[in-house]
Amino acid sequence: MTAVQPGGLSRRGLLAASGAGAAAAGGLSAAMMLTPGHAGATPEQAADSPAERRYDFRGEHQAGITTPAQDRMHFAAFDMDPRASREDLVALLQDWTSAAERMTDGRGAGSLGPLSGPYDAPPDDTGEAIDLPPAGLTITFGFGSSLFGGEGSGKDRFGLAARRPAALERLPHFPGDNLRQQLSDGDLCIQACSDDPQVAVHAVRNLTRIAMGRAHLRWSQLGFGRTSSTSDAQSTPRNLFGFKDGTMGLRGEETDAIDEHVWVSSGADPRAEWMTGGSYLVARKIAMRIEPWDRSSLREQERVVGRTKAEGAPLSGGTEFSQPDFAVKGRGGQPMLALGSHVGIAHPSHNDGVRLLRRGYNYVDGNDEMGRLAAGLFFIAFVTDPRTHYIPMQTKMSRDDLMQEYVQHVGSGLFAVPPGAQGDRYVGQGLFA
Amino acid sequence: MTAVQPGGLSRRGLLAASGAGAAAAGGLSAAMMLTPGHAGATPEQAADSPAERRYDFRGEHQAGITTPAQDRMHFAAFDMDPRASREDLVALLQDWTSAAERMTDGRGAGSLGPLSGPYDAPPDDTGEAIDLPPAGLTITFGFGSSLFGGEGSGKDRFGLAARRPAALERLPHFPGDNLRQQLSDGDLCIQACSDDPQVAVHAVRNLTRIAMGRAHLRWSQLGFGRTSSTSDAQSTPRNLFGFKDGTMGLRGEETDAIDEHVWVSSGADPRAEWMTGGSYLVARKIAMRIEPWDRSSLREQERVVGRTKAEGAPLSGGTEFSQPDFAVKGRGGQPMLALGSHVGIAHPSHNDGVRLLRRGYNYVDGNDEMGRLAAGLFFIAFVTDPRTHYIPMQTKMSRDDLMQEYVQHVGSGLFAVPPGAQGDRYVGQGLFA
Repeated sequence: MTAVQPGGLSRRGLLAASGAGAAAAGGLSAAMMLTPGHAGATPEQAADSPAERRYDFRGEHQAGITTPAQDRMHFAAFDMDPRASREDLVALLQDWTSAAERMTDGRGAGSLGPLSGPYDAPPDDTGEAIDLPPAGLTITFGFGSSLFGGEGSGKDRFGLAARRPAALERLPHFPGDNLRQQLSDGDLCIQACSDDPQVAVHAVRNLTRIAMGRAHLRWSQLGFGRTSSTSDAQSTPRNLFGFKDGTMGLRGEETDAIDEHVWVSSGADPRAEWMTGGSYLVARKIAMRIEPWDRSSLREQERVVGRTKAEGAPLSGGTEFSQPDFAVKGRGGQPMLALGSHVGIAHPSHNDGVRLLRRGYNYVDGNDEMGRLAAGLFFIAFVTDPRTHYIPMQTKMSRDDLMQEYVQHVGSGLFAVPPGAQGDRYVGQGLFA
Repeated sequence: MTAVQPGGLSRRGLLAASGAGAAAAGGLSAAMMLTPGHAGATPEQAADSPAERRYDFRGEHQAGITTPAQDRMHFAAFDMDPRASREDLVALLQDWTSAAERMTDGRGAGSLGPLSGPYDAPPDDTGEAIDLPPAGLTITFGFGSSLFGGEGSGKDRFGLAARRPAALERLPHFPGDNLRQQLSDGDLCIQACSDDPQVAVHAVRNLTRIAMGRAHLRWSQLGFGRTSSTSDAQSTPRNLFGFKDGTMGLRGEETDAIDEHVWVSSGADPRAEWMTGGSYLVARKIAMRIEPWDRSSLREQERVVGRTKAEGAPLSGGTEFSQPDFAVKGRGGQPMLALGSHVGIAHPSHNDGVRLLRRGYNYVDGNDEMGRLAAGLFFIAFVTDPRTHYIPMQTKMSRDDLMQEYVQHVGSGLFAVPPGAQGDRYVGQGLFA
């Protein structure tokens, strides 16, 4: 092959190329490079549509936590390569910060290539989101306990052991867990959420590519239907049991409760002061036994959940947002709302007032060799401390929740999510100060 | 547990319950049953939004072929249970027709249960789409060659061998194929497309549930980003190589070309006159070697595809919709546009004028144990005859296409898609007449 003729440039491409922040790619000036856009609405989308939503990557807290839950998710866990150094880890976080800031702003992870003429380097953006607006993309980073050494992961590879938060230990084994190593844990995690799955996939793919030689994908999960509301403006979605999910969940608007239940406050852990303004991400891949559930009666389903299927009202009466009343008795003196129902087990009044900011997604991974749907809930919660806000509740659930008959936890992860990167800092910089 | 208190009914639930077509469930009158709705827009959606789009299930042709390609897909292949009879097959198609008509109209697959009081039968709808509008849902059914007996599948289980279309044979082995049995073939297939993945998943799940005891899932695939335009109103999407895909594809508006290249005409096959107005669905799961591709230079990527990455213009010059010119020479007298490029191989002028109505989707199935993305293109095309419209082109591609270095076909299926069900007929009824 010889010369490649320069392709014409679309309006969008040109608009994007003239935008701020063109990449500094080796040897080529920014002005010469085509910067992928994902700019502008598609013909099907109005300019004020949700597709045009943009959230700042930088801020006091990372985005993607109290941000109104987007409709789709790509979650990825990474392990550092065995030969990577502390400097490699810092450089990776710097590169990830830069790319995340670009992509959440609707630009590419880097440049695609020169405006004209052949280009013998790989593009710094893979291209599949060039024409797509960010659709509310957020990218949220976290650190697993293995990054800090200890816990059988051997030596303190990155000199971080002394700064490991006390709350950051691998979650205990809960009764009924059937965890698969290849769906659990990891040195690092990325949660990418957007209303457009192609945008979320593009983000994880490009961050994976940027990590090459320093960190590699350990496991990943796509989710397609949010299973919680994190804003008063959102209606309550449904999980794959067909029930409304997250009715009682924390909303971003409840700022006092968010401070209490989600963010890590200064002084909470003297050796991990760098986590101030951060949170802990609990991830659980919960496989649902879809076929037995679908064969169970409506009575059984409602008994297990503790709510009506259609409306989502507690079985003790009222409407969706009525408080459940565990004292109401039905015929024969039995409680209308079983204490072992999902509502009963999870209710704050039975959990020392603990409330969860849930941000999970439905998933379908095809089917198994028996023709059963491989489907369930990818549970995500952001909590101020997993020792008070997740472990006690899950211990009780795994023992007493009537729903246990229909679910199995097959993946698990706990990640320390540092505060947002402000100014020109990189995400997690406080850990290395 | 004793009595379960009736849950309050949402406005949407009531509206839906008062709508037409309530299910006839055993022993309970239609008026008593709560019919799941997916009625009405969510607060985030305007009433005239794409989410409210509805396509008629009934018509001369099945929907989901020339329908403007929706953004998400759930594809499923089924095998009949060994003990199922011809009567079971007919009853299944009748039940599927009824449920598909309901769901594409924005209703549930059946009723959820009674309006009040306990209900000791499983719901006839699984519920996860209750509050969701159909978002352009289409459900398209097809028959695999194994349904007709022969080809090593043993005896003629359903008395259909004499009516098997001559075009309906398992696709040949192409060079480079690495097909997995558990991702290939099947007695029946369903393609469910919608702009909302939860709606598409709901459709396949409920049709799978309805099939219980008669047919079971053999394999299934979720896709999230359409990789073709089937309407002039749509912009050209991108595949996971980051290139625009389907620029040359047939559009639904080209009715003469659609008649020539997509629909089966009367007299085409004397023993399969029942296929008149139908089409053949070619499905190929094409795994992409993402990491080698992402490490290749922009020059190499554009050489392989034959188009510029940003604009999608042929390397012979012009803009996206310019015709490629294979005669244009560059420096050294080499053609600007390699004959082995994807554009060169697939161009109608090199394929006896054949054009494809493509309707594929991007997919990501997580990652493998090496940390490589399990991603690619789930290729779907609808053709008037695979012997003229797919096999010759794919034979050439698998031998000469430069892109072969970066892809591997891992799944395959060919299905006869009968015409649409009109009046009160069920889908595929002509086959049994």
